[in-house]
Amino acid sequence: MPKFMDVHHGMQGITPEALKEAHQADLDIQGDEGVDFQKAWADPESGMVWCVSEAPNAEAVQRIHERAGHPATEVYAVPIEV
Amino acid sequence: MPKFMDVHHGMQGITPEALKEAHQADLDIQGDEGVDFQKAWADPESGMVWCVSEAPNAEAVQRIHERAGHPATEVYAVPIEV
Repeated sequence: MPKFMDVHHGMQGITPEALKEAHQADLDIQGDEGVDFQKAWADPESGMVWCVSEAPNAEAVQRIHERAGHPATEVYAVPIEV
Repeated sequence: MPKFMDVHHGMQGITPEALKEAHQADLDIQGDEGVDFQKAWADPESGMVWCVSEAPNAEAVQRIHERAGHPATEVYAVPIEV
Protein backbone atom coordinates (compact mmCIF):
# COMPACT_ATOMS: atom_id res chain seq x y z
CA MET A 1 0.00 0.00 0.00
CA PRO A 2 1.41 3.44 -0.88
CA LYS A 3 2.75 5.56 1.96
CA PHE A 4 2.04 9.28 2.46
CA MET A 5 3.39 12.19 4.48
CA ASP A 6 0.86 14.93 5.11
CA VAL A 7 1.61 18.32 6.57
CA HIS A 8 -0.62 20.65 8.57
CA HIS A 9 0.18 24.31 9.18
CA GLY A 10 -1.31 26.74 11.69
CA MET A 11 -1.53 24.39 14.69
CA GLN A 12 0.36 26.76 17.01
CA GLY A 13 -0.06 25.84 20.68
CA ILE A 14 -1.24 22.30 19.98
CA THR A 15 -1.09 20.13 23.13
CA PRO A 16 -0.32 16.42 23.48
CA GLU A 17 -4.01 15.86 24.32
CA ALA A 18 -5.18 17.77 21.24
CA LEU A 19 -2.86 15.81 18.94
CA LYS A 20 -4.04 12.55 20.48
CA GLU A 21 -7.69 13.54 20.03
CA ALA A 22 -7.16 14.65 16.43
CA HIS A 23 -5.31 11.42 15.64
CA GLN A 24 -8.08 9.37 17.26
CA ALA A 25 -10.68 11.21 15.16
CA ASP A 26 -8.79 10.05 12.07
CA LEU A 27 -8.49 6.48 13.35
CA ASP A 28 -12.22 6.34 14.07
CA ILE A 29 -13.15 6.82 10.40
CA GLN A 30 -10.01 5.84 8.43
CA GLY A 31 -11.41 2.41 7.59
CA ASP A 32 -14.04 4.06 5.38
CA GLU A 33 -11.27 4.96 2.91
CA GLY A 34 -8.82 2.13 3.57
CA VAL A 35 -6.36 4.54 5.23
CA ASP A 36 -3.97 3.56 8.05
CA PHE A 37 -2.60 6.56 9.96
CA GLN A 38 0.56 5.29 11.62
CA LYS A 39 2.32 8.16 13.32
CA ALA A 40 2.09 11.92 13.89
CA TRP A 41 4.49 14.57 15.19
CA ALA A 42 3.75 18.16 16.21
CA ASP A 43 5.71 21.35 16.81
CA PRO A 44 3.47 23.66 18.89
CA GLU A 45 5.84 26.59 18.30
CA SER A 46 5.73 26.66 14.49
CA GLY A 47 2.28 25.07 14.37
CA MET A 48 3.44 22.29 12.05
CA VAL A 49 2.07 18.74 12.24
CA TRP A 50 3.21 15.77 10.13
CA CYS A 51 1.36 12.46 9.71
CA VAL A 52 2.59 9.26 8.09
CA SER A 53 -0.04 6.95 6.66
CA GLU A 54 -0.61 4.09 4.27
CA ALA A 55 -3.52 4.65 1.92
CA PRO A 56 -4.85 3.84 -1.55
CA ASN A 57 -4.05 7.42 -2.67
CA ALA A 58 -3.48 10.99 -1.42
CA GLU A 59 -7.13 11.93 -1.90
CA ALA A 60 -8.22 9.23 0.57
CA VAL A 61 -5.82 10.64 3.17
CA GLN A 62 -7.18 14.13 2.65
CA ARG A 63 -10.83 13.02 2.77
CA ILE A 64 -10.32 11.42 6.19
CA HIS A 65 -8.50 14.49 7.52
CA GLU A 66 -11.24 16.78 6.17
CA ARG A 67 -14.06 14.71 7.66
CA ALA A 68 -12.18 14.65 11.01
CA GLY A 69 -12.08 18.46 10.91
CA HIS A 70 -8.40 19.07 10.18
CA PRO A 71 -7.65 19.15 6.44
CA ALA A 72 -3.96 18.81 5.56
CA THR A 73 -2.15 21.72 3.92
CA GLU A 74 -0.13 19.31 1.77
CA VAL A 75 -0.17 15.55 1.12
CA TYR A 76 2.90 13.92 -0.43
CA ALA A 77 3.48 10.37 -1.60
CA VAL A 78 6.63 8.97 0.02
CA PRO A 79 7.53 5.88 -2.01
CA ILE A 80 11.08 5.88 -0.60
CA GLU A 81 12.08 5.44 3.04
CA VAL A 82 15.04 4.33 5.10
CA MET B 1 16.49 13.55 24.27
CA PRO B 2 14.54 16.08 22.16
CA LYS B 3 13.13 14.90 18.86
CA PHE B 4 13.34 16.80 15.55
CA MET B 5 11.75 16.73 12.11
CA ASP B 6 13.90 18.21 9.38
CA VAL B 7 12.78 18.94 5.86
CA HIS B 8 14.81 19.05 2.64
CA HIS B 9 13.55 20.61 -0.58
CA GLY B 10 14.87 20.27 -4.12
CA MET B 11 15.61 16.52 -4.10
CA GLN B 12 13.57 15.81 -7.24
CA GLY B 13 14.38 12.43 -8.75
CA ILE B 14 15.98 11.04 -5.59
CA THR B 15 16.35 7.24 -5.76
CA PRO B 16 16.14 4.66 -2.98
CA GLU B 17 19.89 4.17 -3.28
CA ALA B 18 20.59 7.90 -3.03
CA LEU B 19 18.42 8.25 0.07
CA LYS B 20 20.14 5.27 1.66
CA GLU B 21 23.58 6.71 0.88
CA ALA B 22 22.65 10.15 2.21
CA HIS B 23 21.23 8.61 5.39
CA GLN B 24 24.36 6.51 5.83
CA ALA B 25 26.53 9.62 5.45
CA ASP B 26 24.61 11.12 8.38
CA LEU B 27 24.90 7.96 10.47
CA ASP B 28 28.64 7.82 9.87
CA ILE B 29 29.23 11.14 11.66
CA GLN B 30 26.14 11.69 13.83
CA GLY B 31 27.95 10.53 16.97
CA ASP B 32 30.16 13.63 16.82
CA GLU B 33 27.13 15.72 17.77
CA GLY B 34 25.14 13.20 19.79
CA VAL B 35 22.49 12.97 17.06
CA ASP B 36 20.47 9.81 16.29
CA PHE B 37 18.83 9.87 12.85
CA GLN B 38 16.00 7.37 13.08
CA LYS B 39 13.99 7.49 9.89
CA ALA B 40 13.72 9.28 6.55
CA TRP B 41 11.07 9.48 3.83
CA ALA B 42 11.39 10.89 0.31
CA ASP B 43 9.04 12.03 -2.45
CA PRO B 44 11.07 12.06 -5.69
CA GLU B 45 8.28 13.92 -7.51
CA SER B 46 8.12 17.01 -5.26
CA GLY B 47 11.74 16.66 -4.17
CA MET B 48 10.82 16.69 -0.47
CA VAL B 49 12.68 14.62 2.13
CA TRP B 50 11.82 14.39 5.85
CA CYS B 51 14.08 13.02 8.59
CA VAL B 52 13.19 12.24 12.20
CA SER B 53 16.01 12.37 14.72
CA GLU B 54 16.81 12.66 18.39
CA ALA B 55 19.44 15.27 19.17
CA PRO B 56 20.64 17.73 21.80
CA ASN B 57 19.27 20.62 19.70
CA ALA B 58 18.29 21.65 16.16
CA GLU B 59 21.73 23.11 15.44
CA ALA B 60 23.36 19.71 16.02
CA VAL B 61 20.97 18.13 13.49
CA GLN B 62 21.80 20.79 10.93
CA ARG B 63 25.57 20.57 11.50
CA ILE B 64 25.53 16.83 10.73
CA HIS B 65 23.39 17.33 7.61
CA GLU B 66 25.69 20.14 6.43
CA ARG B 67 28.86 18.10 6.96
CA ALA B 68 27.23 15.16 5.13
CA GLY B 69 26.61 17.49 2.16
CA HIS B 70 22.83 17.90 2.35
CA PRO B 71 21.82 20.81 4.61
CA ALA B 72 18.16 20.80 5.68
CA THR B 73 15.87 23.57 4.48
CA GLU B 74 14.05 23.58 7.84
CA VAL B 75 14.57 21.88 11.21
CA TYR B 76 11.64 21.71 13.66
CA ALA B 77 11.49 20.46 17.24
CA VAL B 78 8.68 17.89 17.57
CA PRO B 79 8.09 17.56 21.31
CA ILE B 80 4.68 15.93 20.72
CA GLU B 81 4.01 12.66 18.94
CA VAL B 82 1.37 9.97 18.77
